[in-house]
Amino acid sequence: MSDDCILCKIGSGEVESDVLYRDESCFAVRDIAPIAPVHLLVIPNRHVTRLSDPSAETRSVLGDMLAAASRLAAEEGVGSSGYRLTINQGENGGQTLEHLHLHVIGGKPLGRMG
Amino acid sequence: MSDDCILCKIGSGEVESDVLYRDESCFAVRDIAPIAPVHLLVIPNRHVTRLSDPSAETRSVLGDMLAAASRLAAEEGVGSSGYRLTINQGENGGQTLEHLHLHVIGGKPLGRMG
Repeated sequence: MSDDCILCKIGSGEVESDVLYRDESCFAVRDIAPIAPVHLLVIPNRHVTRLSDPSAETRSVLGDMLAAASRLAAEEGVGSSGYRLTINQGENGGQTLEHLHLHVIGGKPLGRMG
Repeated sequence: MSDDCILCKIGSGEVESDVLYRDESCFAVRDIAPIAPVHLLVIPNRHVTRLSDPSAETRSVLGDMLAAASRLAAEEGVGSSGYRLTINQGENGGQTLEHLHLHVIGGKPLGRMG
């Protein structure tokens, strides 16, 4: 956990938030600035910042995050209509929070990737 | 392997393609219609179609795919400047090939997610 990280604080409960899902690897909340009817964030419990050269343990967490994302998409009713999963890394990727997070976006046609 | 799947055929070598990377879980090629200076696809060797409720084995492959994506991003020179990883699922997600694939996009500011 990083003391200054809002996602760590949400994960630990220090900052109150509606946590939709939690397992031993990750938790999920709604994005505070949704770009589609469904827009969730799946967030590792540990303060992982970047993907670069992930350890075996982090790889396992990443697999669990994608599995959680697919289950949450189904629960949100977009499993069949389709959705987009996105991880932004660094400045060109548009990463705005240093704690790694996976966007789950759906509920409308998403068009081309930017 | 699915007989009608172009990504299976590239993976097996039946269709010739410049394969940039290969391990026991996945392989990588350049997208044929790049939307940025760097645009790769990381593709599971097995014919996985959707993420829905992935098995433990598939979760492991997904973790390996993200690890490969981060290494490839570094090799392509965008590890520091940043990049975006995207999986499109189903019609609303804009999935155009039924074999699961992870886009690795970088080399310019990518702006907002669509």
